Amino acid sequence: MTENIYDDEAFFAAYSRLPRSLEGLPAAPEWPSLRALLPDLAGKRVLDLGCGFGWFCRWAREQGAASVLGLDVSERMLARARADTADRAIVYAKADLEHFAAPAEPVDLVYSSLVFHYVVNLAGLLGGIRASLASGGALVFSVEHPIYTAPGNPGWSEAADGRPVWPVDGYLDEGPRTTNWLVDGVIKQHRTIGRTVNLLVRSGFAVTRLEEWGPSAEQVAAHPDWANERQRPSFLLVACERR
Amino acid sequence: MTENIYDDEAFFAAYSRLPRSLEGLPAAPEWPSLRALLPDLAGKRVLDLGCGFGWFCRWAREQGAASVLGLDVSERMLARARADTADRAIVYAKADLEHFAAPAEPVDLVYSSLVFHYVVNLAGLLGGIRASLASGGALVFSVEHPIYTAPGNPGWSEAADGRPVWPVDGYLDEGPRTTNWLVDGVIKQHRTIGRTVNLLVRSGFAVTRLEEWGPSAEQVAAHPDWANERQRPSFLLVACERR
Repeated sequence: MTENIYDDEAFFAAYSRLPRSLEGLPAAPEWPSLRALLPDLAGKRVLDLGCGFGWFCRWAREQGAASVLGLDVSERMLARARADTADRAIVYAKADLEHFAAPAEPVDLVYSSLVFHYVVNLAGLLGGIRASLASGGALVFSVEHPIYTAPGNPGWSEAADGRPVWPVDGYLDEGPRTTNWLVDGVIKQHRTIGRTVNLLVRSGFAVTRLEEWGPSAEQVAAHPDWANERQRPSFLLVACERR
Repeated sequence: MTENIYDDEAFFAAYSRLPRSLEGLPAAPEWPSLRALLPDLAGKRVLDLGCGFGWFCRWAREQGAASVLGLDVSERMLARARADTADRAIVYAKADLEHFAAPAEPVDLVYSSLVFHYVVNLAGLLGGIRASLASGGALVFSVEHPIYTAPGNPGWSEAADGRPVWPVDGYLDEGPRTTNWLVDGVIKQHRTIGRTVNLLVRSGFAVTRLEEWGPSAEQVAAHPDWANERQRPSFLLVACERR
């Protein structure tokens, strides 16, 4: 089963207090870049893998999506998503992405934000996503960037001249990484960009955009404490089409 | 004009003494991985951008390529390539990749090893490569990996626990980097993987393989001094098809 730290009580409480949990998509600094990768949603059938509190599902409907299916492994998150949603065209359901089966009806867009790095069997999941998509369908997703996930002991350091640097090690040794984020012992899967791209190609996708995300100069001007985040990307954003 | 450090006397002398200059492709540790990205060359027309001493051109003919055109900006390298080649199906010519024009006859494969990171106008070059390729043609190339080119002051460091780490900074700030490799003041262009992939897609290519190269476990066993090179990739190897 996919890492389901989201049903851990302490994690859930801390996660619920994050800006992106309280305020939704606009509080996620990478959202403008991820949004730019999305197709026009008017009339589209949308599947959100790892829907969390349902912020994207509701936004997709505001953009004119015909229907949205939000899947998540966490009962706690689904319960809150349902409580926060009054729209019969949005359906939430529990699913373990480690054993994902395509829904009965095909969709036009599969979206997933910061979830795939918890999934061990990404090849299997991508096969299921490919099978879920109608002809011409798209997959848009974000994951933590491998520069961010690689280190055994991740964190900023200082060069001899005082510049902030992000020490990288273990980049080519893929597999689980245990980190302390909100609570101790969260397990994520470190994958190179090459691995992700090659899995996509072998699963029947054509990569159409790949963004290594850090805050823009404008975002740093508005949030000076984000300046370090220009030194190395924190997220990888990918758009692809079903071939 | 593309950085042409190769006609600098001191650089050329030092470059000529590198194992890959003296012994050719087998002396390049990334060669087995790059070779694995190549299509079958039998009967193919091949264009090598930045052919250097012509090692790949001659190898391509050994694999059955019908013809090979090797282009390089360096007169010194072309002179030695011609001196080392006795094969009328291989033609060498001088070209500045900053202002590349497709050859008169289309080719089936464009190959380039460790050259594109010297090119400022990569979008222009990729457009020219696209125009050079026959239908079904492929582009296979290597560049220095952006984790390797990003830092303002590149080099290994040591974590508090003694592990070797590669400190990254400036990853998202693309543009020229001046490094000291063989001689002082060699200028390379730092580009993110996202930039490279997006330029390829916009230029009419579909990425079919992307490898972030470091030595294999077997290579490290044979060359223990390469062990650090597993900590971060040094090269990016890309295969794509003309769409």
